Amino acid sequence: MKLSLKSSFVALALCAAAACAGVHAGAPADPLPSWKDGDTKAAITAFVERVTKEGSPDFVPPAERIATFDNDGTLWAEQPLYFQAFYAFDRVEAMAKDHPEWATTEPFKSVLAGDVKGALAGGTDDLLKIVMASHAEVTTDEFADSVREWISTAKHPTTGLRYADMTYQPMVELLEYLRANGFKTFIVSGGGIDFMRVFTEEAYGIPPEQVIGTTIDAEFELRDGVPTLVKKGEMVLLDDKAGKPVGIYRHIGRRPIFAGGNSDGDLQMLQYTTIPRDDADTRPRFGLIVHHTDGEREFAYDRESHIGRLDQALDEAGDRGWTVVDMKADWSRVYTGSQD
Amino acid sequence: MKLSLKSSFVALALCAAAACAGVHAGAPADPLPSWKDGDTKAAITAFVERVTKEGSPDFVPPAERIATFDNDGTLWAEQPLYFQAFYAFDRVEAMAKDHPEWATTEPFKSVLAGDVKGALAGGTDDLLKIVMASHAEVTTDEFADSVREWISTAKHPTTGLRYADMTYQPMVELLEYLRANGFKTFIVSGGGIDFMRVFTEEAYGIPPEQVIGTTIDAEFELRDGVPTLVKKGEMVLLDDKAGKPVGIYRHIGRRPIFAGGNSDGDLQMLQYTTIPRDDADTRPRFGLIVHHTDGEREFAYDRESHIGRLDQALDEAGDRGWTVVDMKADWSRVYTGSQD
Repeated sequence: MKLSLKSSFVALALCAAAACAGVHAGAPADPLPSWKDGDTKAAITAFVERVTKEGSPDFVPPAERIATFDNDGTLWAEQPLYFQAFYAFDRVEAMAKDHPEWATTEPFKSVLAGDVKGALAGGTDDLLKIVMASHAEVTTDEFADSVREWISTAKHPTTGLRYADMTYQPMVELLEYLRANGFKTFIVSGGGIDFMRVFTEEAYGIPPEQVIGTTIDAEFELRDGVPTLVKKGEMVLLDDKAGKPVGIYRHIGRRPIFAGGNSDGDLQMLQYTTIPRDDADTRPRFGLIVHHTDGEREFAYDRESHIGRLDQALDEAGDRGWTVVDMKADWSRVYTGSQD
Repeated sequence: MKLSLKSSFVALALCAAAACAGVHAGAPADPLPSWKDGDTKAAITAFVERVTKEGSPDFVPPAERIATFDNDGTLWAEQPLYFQAFYAFDRVEAMAKDHPEWATTEPFKSVLAGDVKGALAGGTDDLLKIVMASHAEVTTDEFADSVREWISTAKHPTTGLRYADMTYQPMVELLEYLRANGFKTFIVSGGGIDFMRVFTEEAYGIPPEQVIGTTIDAEFELRDGVPTLVKKGEMVLLDDKAGKPVGIYRHIGRRPIFAGGNSDGDLQMLQYTTIPRDDADTRPRFGLIVHHTDGEREFAYDRESHIGRLDQALDEAGDRGWTVVDMKADWSRVYTGSQD
């Protein structure tokens, strides 16, 4: 597939060694070395210290230290398009010979012509059509194999990095830091559940059973005597906006005490996590928003973006006490796959 | 609610002390003291030793030691009716004043008359109607509170035990033994997901996020500013028969290596767990069937039972190499809540 999008990504010089290292001989190792010292980092570590201090009124038992994170735009990049859309486009190309009708039907016609803008003219609905068509009538094992091969080889159109190298180093450190403090970390993302499960364990240390995502259902059959799950194309969870607390209800069954997101798609998860049930509900909770402020090392966008729009959640952040990460100011390094 | 069912349960004398204890001074503690020595117990311990022995060709990394268990009839009793049905009946009674139409509509009319047999004349469909009607239009918090109160007070009609005391001691020991050997234990049950989650952590050491069950969906709303999940009555997973591998796909995302069940409702989960994908798939796997052979200490039933029918799975057990537990012969003790 040829991309007609212009790169908005410019590689930057390596960060100064001092800002990247963060570890001094003799001092205890910094668990968040890619986070610059400042209010954001201090807010995170202060919260973790509060809820893990035994005997303190804010202590939360380990079993209840549930932390949920969006993926696209929160744990890895999402511009100029959700990475799963690139996978879907590549699959539409590969499947096209069995679907002659796509040559004359939108949005497939545009995908096949390499016209991303045309393919997405219909917005989310068109994107869903592409994802559903390219993710159905395949066994779950075949699908996982296909994603595994794609993610180990395909390159991002503007950075040239493999997609798995565009995970955010500071967020990977945050996940590890939370787990080291007894938290159980989950992904709660609008991305496809079985798309993500292929790489989340290696990329984030999050096992498949702690990944919640938009779910295209499978059906069970014995195929020539072999138990087989076949993806049939029916969506049983759209894990976005109000669907995120629903996904948490279905998969986790209790409220997180820490939630991280980057867009209005995460608004309801942040509300569900942080707003008390009643006056008696004084349990400490933490809401985190990753604000894409760094147009040089990453992509700068918020209220006007078609992908990952951050508008209402940014308005609410102040009143709700959510911590807004300024990527440019707070992170000494962005991608796991590069040093800047 | 008055029950018109006759008790089929007769309490037995305490088992001989020697058979119950199973621990001898100086010998290492038996992790399965309520399992009598014999082929069944030996098969379980041999499997666990094989997959946990580092360097052996049968070694399975801890992250992939997924064990799934049915609940009703496998981890706790299910006769003369699924315990959740007793809860549903009690709720229908409590809700009846707001549903005058139930006085003349089956199956509710029979429930309200205490006529269990009449209430279930329509089989599973009637039971589902009762469960759906009694579990909908309530917030998830209210529902959990209601189950919590019920399970701490209600008594089983024939044993007189609290329901949570009718969990099986040998199975609780098996769950602990597996976890001590690096397994992650899950429930995959036809029972309601949020009904079970109220008690599984205390009863079995299984946290809510590792419970998969039949799911009546919830919707998210801000109710007077408070994030609220309301159960709306739409079923999004019937976690029985072919629905069990689907539940495993949605919630876990990889195949178990150990599955335990007791009825044909578990057949597909046992197949999915134990039948190799292809000739190259030589990973060791374990299928366990709890066979209800003890009419004195518990309930004796299999091929002809309306609850927990075990027929096809029993036929397949031999060829598939599944281990069939003879409750009467293999267990020195049955319920956690009594000594026999």
